[in-house]
Amino acid sequence: MISKVMMDYVANSSIIRAMFEEGKRLSSIYGEENVFDFSIGNPNVEPPESIKKAVVEILSEESPNLVHGYMSNSGYVDVRTAISNNISKKHNIKLNEDNIIMTCGAAGGLNILLKTLLDPEDEVITFSPFFGEYKNYVHNFNGKLVIVPSNLETFQPDLEAFEASITNKTKAVIINSPNNPTGVIYSEDTIKQLAEILYKKQTQFSSSIYLISDEPYREIIYDNVKVPYILNYYKNSFIGYSFSKSLSLPGERIGYIVSHSEMDDFHNVIQALNVANRILGFVNAPSLFQRVIGKCLDSEVDVNIYKRNRDLLYNHLIKIGFSCIKPEGAFYLFPKSLIPDDKEFAKEAKKFNLLIVPGSTFGCPGHFRLSYCISYDKIERSLPQFDKLAKIYFK
Amino acid sequence: MISKVMMDYVANSSIIRAMFEEGKRLSSIYGEENVFDFSIGNPNVEPPESIKKAVVEILSEESPNLVHGYMSNSGYVDVRTAISNNISKKHNIKLNEDNIIMTCGAAGGLNILLKTLLDPEDEVITFSPFFGEYKNYVHNFNGKLVIVPSNLETFQPDLEAFEASITNKTKAVIINSPNNPTGVIYSEDTIKQLAEILYKKQTQFSSSIYLISDEPYREIIYDNVKVPYILNYYKNSFIGYSFSKSLSLPGERIGYIVSHSEMDDFHNVIQALNVANRILGFVNAPSLFQRVIGKCLDSEVDVNIYKRNRDLLYNHLIKIGFSCIKPEGAFYLFPKSLIPDDKEFAKEAKKFNLLIVPGSTFGCPGHFRLSYCISYDKIERSLPQFDKLAKIYFK
Repeated sequence: MISKVMMDYVANSSIIRAMFEEGKRLSSIYGEENVFDFSIGNPNVEPPESIKKAVVEILSEESPNLVHGYMSNSGYVDVRTAISNNISKKHNIKLNEDNIIMTCGAAGGLNILLKTLLDPEDEVITFSPFFGEYKNYVHNFNGKLVIVPSNLETFQPDLEAFEASITNKTKAVIINSPNNPTGVIYSEDTIKQLAEILYKKQTQFSSSIYLISDEPYREIIYDNVKVPYILNYYKNSFIGYSFSKSLSLPGERIGYIVSHSEMDDFHNVIQALNVANRILGFVNAPSLFQRVIGKCLDSEVDVNIYKRNRDLLYNHLIKIGFSCIKPEGAFYLFPKSLIPDDKEFAKEAKKFNLLIVPGSTFGCPGHFRLSYCISYDKIERSLPQFDKLAKIYFK
Repeated sequence: MISKVMMDYVANSSIIRAMFEEGKRLSSIYGEENVFDFSIGNPNVEPPESIKKAVVEILSEESPNLVHGYMSNSGYVDVRTAISNNISKKHNIKLNEDNIIMTCGAAGGLNILLKTLLDPEDEVITFSPFFGEYKNYVHNFNGKLVIVPSNLETFQPDLEAFEASITNKTKAVIINSPNNPTGVIYSEDTIKQLAEILYKKQTQFSSSIYLISDEPYREIIYDNVKVPYILNYYKNSFIGYSFSKSLSLPGERIGYIVSHSEMDDFHNVIQALNVANRILGFVNAPSLFQRVIGKCLDSEVDVNIYKRNRDLLYNHLIKIGFSCIKPEGAFYLFPKSLIPDDKEFAKEAKKFNLLIVPGSTFGCPGHFRLSYCISYDKIERSLPQFDKLAKIYFK
């Protein structure tokens, strides 16, 4: 009796989430310490102490009806001002509170953006491997997701294929850097070329093509790499940001959208985002946590914990014969599976209590994703399991 | 460059929200104390002290990665268990955690319900006057909202018209009691007859028709009236609940859906709700506030404050010649406007710094809504303004 579209969803319910549930099941059988769940990006690094401090301060100093009440659907003005100032300073760009819409995480942000932009049958381009939810988000608004491959050595987007895929129906492009699932950061050169292609195609089709940069992993970076700020390269651009990973608050559903002041139709766009936040049922980003992050914009989690994890797992996998790009950000590895059939490989891995996600979930078969946001100790204890798994194939 | 559907929304952007912004504008001119904003349902009664206490306890006793982390999309099992036990006891019905899905307020709840149930062109019935967002929520999923009138004396639904409006495309019925905007509570007799009609029509069309009871005002009731619990009357029923009003936490976006265990297709429905929470971008109800309300299920706000407001405003309006049903719940009055054109009447009221919402916003012209969740003092000071407004028409 549920809708046809939901029947399909229920039937193919997210492999990642299914893994999460499977992990809980295996843990109840073998003990949690003997199940190696690399399936979900739930940060294990603690939020900074400043979060708790900010909550306590706000609850004792501010009026409860302000802290827990309704505000404009776009969020508290003082919080949006604080965020815009922070970005302006960090990225040498001039923003104010109008450029910021507070959202229920990046997922909420992407949904109100797509509601705002898409007419039925409009096309949205993304690059594989990609976060599988993009397809669902685009389908929510009757759009069509067009998948363009990346270079499988560098995992930078294939820009020739990109250019060829743009049509007069292309309304938006979603990029994700640092990338889930590869951990790759798009270079400045990539962003410049991408912007150039978009400008050219906009002229060719007399259209507006919006670039949406999904950036929940912006702060999770290693080895002092730079993540280009796309507002400095392309005018029709949005950033979907989230504090889920940068402050280890994924359950709190707190993030924001940045809109470039010089984009086409700026004023209608920000008003539409405000309305979309309301009518999709978000209404507003959770109020207390808006106020909390307003006080914690310079806080950060200890990224070195993730870096140690990356190094341990990456080095070991390379040593025993896996092939994998070394991630510069996020907390994922995306190695090649040892057989072409990545789903079969994931099943095999489960026999060693290793929960991994097949690359085909991200539109990139022949690979698998490991989330290394788990304890160092657990990664250490998982290594012999990877050895056993590899031995099956390297005889 | 925004989508066609959003152009319409932006053009007709919610009158209620526009009023809210207008109130802020007038306040900046005349001073906040001289603007009487009866336009929005933002509770002025403080949340109970237990909320703050629970937050502080949770932050000092529970692991931050649990408190702020991901959980199942349906919410924390322990919180859902606590809620199901609480309901089971209160309403003499047997529920467990599977019956409960934690949602981003009732608005989030209604959206995941409609995503779960609606195929394009499916019909959803509601009774006027109705909360205007229902139309937007139904349109989000390409459904069609069918509006059935209420009896304009009692504001109970017109059940004959209801029966006649049900077709083989009817997938759901949304009721809202205590009602926004009338404050009326549907009697047990109404609910029984409504259920009887639904059972009959399900048989006639061999269909499943789901009853959705939107209940953010369940606890805001006066004079010891009873609000029937619809799970005790109809099997294909859901409740969309929110703590926005019951605990004065509207900004926190915390609520839940209850699904009747004996509904058609129960297991697919709850799985679909779980998936819908994820793919619409809610992901999960905000985590800290899930845990907070898990500890505060027996807390309540001081409803007497609203009752005093109701009595003051209602008695005065009746005295000076307005005609209005006496609300038994929620914090709204829905008087007849003194001229048939309620929009014109609202414009006139604004000249006296009275911000009121025209009844046509709720599909019921010739009336207007007053939200009396503002301070008693302010209501007192607004009374002479209502006198002046009335004098224009009672010459």
